[in-house]
Amino acid sequence: MRIIVDAMGGDNAPNEIVAGAVSAAKKYGVEILLVGREDAIKPLIPQDAKGITIMNAEQVITMEDDPMSVLKSKKDSSMAYAFRALRDGEGDAVVTAGNSGAVLAGGTMIVKRIKGIRRAAFAPIMPTMTGETLLIDSGANAECTPEYLLQFATMGTHYIKAVRGVENPKVGLLNNGAEEHKGTPMHQEAYKLLASAPINFAGNVEGRDVPEGKVDVVVADGFSGNVLLKTFEGVGKFFLKELKIIFGKNLFTKLATLILMSGVKALKKKTDHNEVGGAPLLGVSKPVFKAHGSAIARTIENAIGQAIIYVEQDVIGKITESIVSEEKE
Amino acid sequence: MRIIVDAMGGDNAPNEIVAGAVSAAKKYGVEILLVGREDAIKPLIPQDAKGITIMNAEQVITMEDDPMSVLKSKKDSSMAYAFRALRDGEGDAVVTAGNSGAVLAGGTMIVKRIKGIRRAAFAPIMPTMTGETLLIDSGANAECTPEYLLQFATMGTHYIKAVRGVENPKVGLLNNGAEEHKGTPMHQEAYKLLASAPINFAGNVEGRDVPEGKVDVVVADGFSGNVLLKTFEGVGKFFLKELKIIFGKNLFTKLATLILMSGVKALKKKTDHNEVGGAPLLGVSKPVFKAHGSAIARTIENAIGQAIIYVEQDVIGKITESIVSEEKE
Repeated sequence: MRIIVDAMGGDNAPNEIVAGAVSAAKKYGVEILLVGREDAIKPLIPQDAKGITIMNAEQVITMEDDPMSVLKSKKDSSMAYAFRALRDGEGDAVVTAGNSGAVLAGGTMIVKRIKGIRRAAFAPIMPTMTGETLLIDSGANAECTPEYLLQFATMGTHYIKAVRGVENPKVGLLNNGAEEHKGTPMHQEAYKLLASAPINFAGNVEGRDVPEGKVDVVVADGFSGNVLLKTFEGVGKFFLKELKIIFGKNLFTKLATLILMSGVKALKKKTDHNEVGGAPLLGVSKPVFKAHGSAIARTIENAIGQAIIYVEQDVIGKITESIVSEEKE
Repeated sequence: MRIIVDAMGGDNAPNEIVAGAVSAAKKYGVEILLVGREDAIKPLIPQDAKGITIMNAEQVITMEDDPMSVLKSKKDSSMAYAFRALRDGEGDAVVTAGNSGAVLAGGTMIVKRIKGIRRAAFAPIMPTMTGETLLIDSGANAECTPEYLLQFATMGTHYIKAVRGVENPKVGLLNNGAEEHKGTPMHQEAYKLLASAPINFAGNVEGRDVPEGKVDVVVADGFSGNVLLKTFEGVGKFFLKELKIIFGKNLFTKLATLILMSGVKALKKKTDHNEVGGAPLLGVSKPVFKAHGSAIARTIENAIGQAIIYVEQDVIGKITESIVSEEKE
């Protein structure tokens, strides 16, 4: 297997990206195609590293760049190269921590969507009290139609089944209340579509139901899904910061903290997005993984691990099949 | 001052509601008009309680009732009576833990909006790393126009200034990214309106910026505002539950927890919505406060405390004035 890594994407590129790619190559025994400025990347690769190939690309897409730059003004960027390499079969998956808008544009326009899929969507996994839940869409589509949401539900179901082995995953629709009539007309219509679809639909879920682990897949329009994801992240930081203050208050609290350390570390790890690694761009015809913009080496290593499972479990084949069988109906 | 309390609204009515009202009457030295089933309420009031009057109302609006029931099928409900009493000047404010939709319908149609205000909005106060922030709208209006959001910003500014003494409060627009062009066309248009309004606009905020305390007022469409508020609540519960597990692991962790107890209790209190009490329905012509459906006595007591400040600070007068001066421009 060969994973294409955009070495120049994200706040900590290329250092952390290259470090993560190198350790993933070793850990998983896969080949890595590192795309980016050769002169910046080469010195970061240890002499004894195996399975790493560099593909030189001079331009870099920044967080401030227009999403369309990947197709227009920055065709020679590492991200554009990475997507073309994926399209042309030079690798099995792309992992990037770059500009989300550009990932969406490049994934949709260069790699292309699966035939029949109307919109691609980001689908991160989030921790819950009972395990974890998949959120789809977390921000690719600020505006959605009920039909998009139905496809998100189908894609999310196949994905979580394949990569986490969840049998018959429960799907909830993110809404502003539990009752069927809640939300905008778009959400009301989506509710009806989901209720009659061949999925395990559990009705509407509210923001508070998600960390409780009420469902396995949360279907959301990209706008409120993004609010959910980022609020989750922000409130997590808030609590960890408050705990730090409580723990560091005086000598006694510091001693007490030592006793609790293993538990607190586990909680920190559980709520750390670096552990999950990345979110797939579901709906494109080849595996594309987006890591958090603040990705560090560990994030990239984990994202590559996820990409490998995604390829091995043939998630795209399963989604494609379900779309084909839907169209036959 | 006289506060009208809907004794039958919420999951814990009437017991907790009456208990909270009784203690608020004592604490704040105000008169309370308790509206609801006299035979259910009367036995709950201690012999020596002062300043409590009961207004009998036979019907009860439940969480499952249609919002319009307050105007149509349940005109004899405690909530409908409470709103009519407020309208007719029998009290200075209404506090209810009842059905949000019915509060909105009753507030808008019985109490009526301030002249010139297009939509009323719920505006709860949330804790942040640096203090607190006001969210407006947290769920009254699933669909919004840019003009509604502009009015929310103005109302939120006046409210937080008046009740918390924040000078020149910073206002952020809840969006799915920091950049000006982010979000739906509605959000993009709202951004422009807010940027040219006589408020201290700080640009877009994302879900993660809110618990960080980046702004004093978060302006949101009611759908994503609701997702934000409830996710905040849910993630808070998630962390407190995880901590409980860590603390209760064994004898040593239990001992360590004793040392940390005061800090953890303070954090619990800080993130407990019962402490804030209620959210005003900003934009209606008289003070209406909505407490959480799960309100306990303490929640109601605090909501009444908030309502008193709202009346004393003449928030409605200030909002009305700002609307009048806007119209003159």
